[in-house]
Amino acid sequence: MATEAPPLTPIRWRGRSVLVLDQTLLPGEEVWLELTDYGAVIDAIQNMRIRGAPCIGVAGAYGVALAALEYSAEPGRLARRLRTAADQIRRARPTGANLDWAVRRMMNVAAEHASRPEAAADALVAEAQRIQAEDQDANAAIGRLGAELLPTEASVLTHCNTGSLATGGGGTALGVITTAWSQGKLARVYATETRPLLQGARLTAWELARAGVDATVLPDSAAGSLMRRGCVTAVVVGADRIAANGDVANKIGTYTLAVLAREHHVPFYVAAPTSTVDLDLPNGNAIPIEERPDHEVTHVAGVRIVAEGVSVLNMAFDVTPGEYVNAIVTENGVARGGPASRGLARMMEHSHA
Amino acid sequence: MATEAPPLTPIRWRGRSVLVLDQTLLPGEEVWLELTDYGAVIDAIQNMRIRGAPCIGVAGAYGVALAALEYSAEPGRLARRLRTAADQIRRARPTGANLDWAVRRMMNVAAEHASRPEAAADALVAEAQRIQAEDQDANAAIGRLGAELLPTEASVLTHCNTGSLATGGGGTALGVITTAWSQGKLARVYATETRPLLQGARLTAWELARAGVDATVLPDSAAGSLMRRGCVTAVVVGADRIAANGDVANKIGTYTLAVLAREHHVPFYVAAPTSTVDLDLPNGNAIPIEERPDHEVTHVAGVRIVAEGVSVLNMAFDVTPGEYVNAIVTENGVARGGPASRGLARMMEHSHA
Repeated sequence: MATEAPPLTPIRWRGRSVLVLDQTLLPGEEVWLELTDYGAVIDAIQNMRIRGAPCIGVAGAYGVALAALEYSAEPGRLARRLRTAADQIRRARPTGANLDWAVRRMMNVAAEHASRPEAAADALVAEAQRIQAEDQDANAAIGRLGAELLPTEASVLTHCNTGSLATGGGGTALGVITTAWSQGKLARVYATETRPLLQGARLTAWELARAGVDATVLPDSAAGSLMRRGCVTAVVVGADRIAANGDVANKIGTYTLAVLAREHHVPFYVAAPTSTVDLDLPNGNAIPIEERPDHEVTHVAGVRIVAEGVSVLNMAFDVTPGEYVNAIVTENGVARGGPASRGLARMMEHSHA
Repeated sequence: MATEAPPLTPIRWRGRSVLVLDQTLLPGEEVWLELTDYGAVIDAIQNMRIRGAPCIGVAGAYGVALAALEYSAEPGRLARRLRTAADQIRRARPTGANLDWAVRRMMNVAAEHASRPEAAADALVAEAQRIQAEDQDANAAIGRLGAELLPTEASVLTHCNTGSLATGGGGTALGVITTAWSQGKLARVYATETRPLLQGARLTAWELARAGVDATVLPDSAAGSLMRRGCVTAVVVGADRIAANGDVANKIGTYTLAVLAREHHVPFYVAAPTSTVDLDLPNGNAIPIEERPDHEVTHVAGVRIVAEGVSVLNMAFDVTPGEYVNAIVTENGVARGGPASRGLARMMEHSHA
């Protein structure tokens, strides 16, 4: 039942610039932005025109490549300037692991070119493209491995957007879902709208409709009632950073879904590439949680929806302890069960660090 | 620290009409509507210009009074016409108990006037005003009894709107909160925004700001993370219908909060007048759950936020099993503990049925 919609690639290298689909305007408008310097990449990441931890990683890599092109006229100063640019790019958003991972990988390539800086820019462009291509391959593997976890006639609940718009390829959690759908295993997909920025209602629903998947959008708060009615076979979500013990930072509301899933004996799966796993952090308490501007909660489409005179809480992410996670699906395999740390470490042995 | 804002009364009898504050336009605009016939009352209830189970009960009572005034020119036909009007009013919205309760009470008064129909209209107007006055008194008692359950320095989380806008008086759950605030017992109030119609963000925030209470609005999905951080001392919510075993129908998302509260050992309190208790229903499975139109989820302020091509789930209420409820606070006392049915039945012995 998979339809023939062309693959979505929201970020594309164009020789000396990056083309990105502005995700703040979807689904109403499809506007592509051409980013010609790394500062524009940082802006696009911070304003969430590009979003999704793996996609932000790809964007960060292209940002370093753009900085290298910008500074290549003075090879003697390249290394120092690249370090400054890399530090700025890496700080664009704090919670997702992939940005830091990608920038680090880019800077390793830059370091390999310390003695021949005139060749660095080309090598960095190639490395950024490789990071995107590898994420595409990782997505495909995650989709295949994750779909194996789902029984036939499954109704799957997902949160936020983890599809092509959030990654370099076919998606993580949403890749699992579209793969399972194409195998005829799914009855229905439930997508939480994902307040405040409505990535589920705007982006996941758009991707699912485009792929011909039977999908239903619900207010975030309705997930409990839906599970109690027995309508959810499994919950599949993505991740922004996974600590060594299997604790998962992901879009705000993920933890609420994990608690509800456990209460209703519904398996809770996390799908993410190994570039999201941060073995340097022992547990989720050490993951920095981004707080975003009030206006994302107080306004929708420019209209104020919160009464004046109160404060607003806008933590962009939460942390789900590993004990709520039944399995973490990576491109290198599935880490199952309670504290998934041993399984995770094994996945990482095979990953391109 | 209570401020001197004038009491809010969103529904007022005006001799031959009812004045209601249009809650769909708050907090942006304060528009009062004058309803001169019972059909207009039904419309206002169905379109949620008047909302909140106790306030809908008061509105329904005034609707019957308006019908009596409309038909009083032909006393011989009054009884039959009133029955038809009452049936229409009672069906305006299905989930809340108070509407049916109030209409039934009005029809008992009509029946008492079967032999002197020319006096019925005046008696029915008086009865509707009595229903509103009693709800005011019930709110005050609920506020007092509920505030006793809260420790000092409490941070309370609430859902939807249960204040003056939702009742005949000072509110149920929000009455507990404002009473506790005026006693200096509260540190902060957290209000979920309450998608899809944003009663928390629009109405509760407006009432709390007006009352000078330190309040914070959060996306519904952030409640889990907030509880995990230890920021919530108690959850206090209202109810639309309470079954004999203590199962509680309330705004969609209430059940999710109840599961989260239990997971975090946070007490979960329900505040409602005895007119919300329906001893005829053995448990929550028998409570009819209203499904409302898609556009409430797909659009905010007239702007489409859900991509085309997917379906939408818009159940207006959910049912929280009694075992998740630590106490039900009524005007006649507090029914505590697990299945609260015995306590509830005792509360009902003292109520005006």
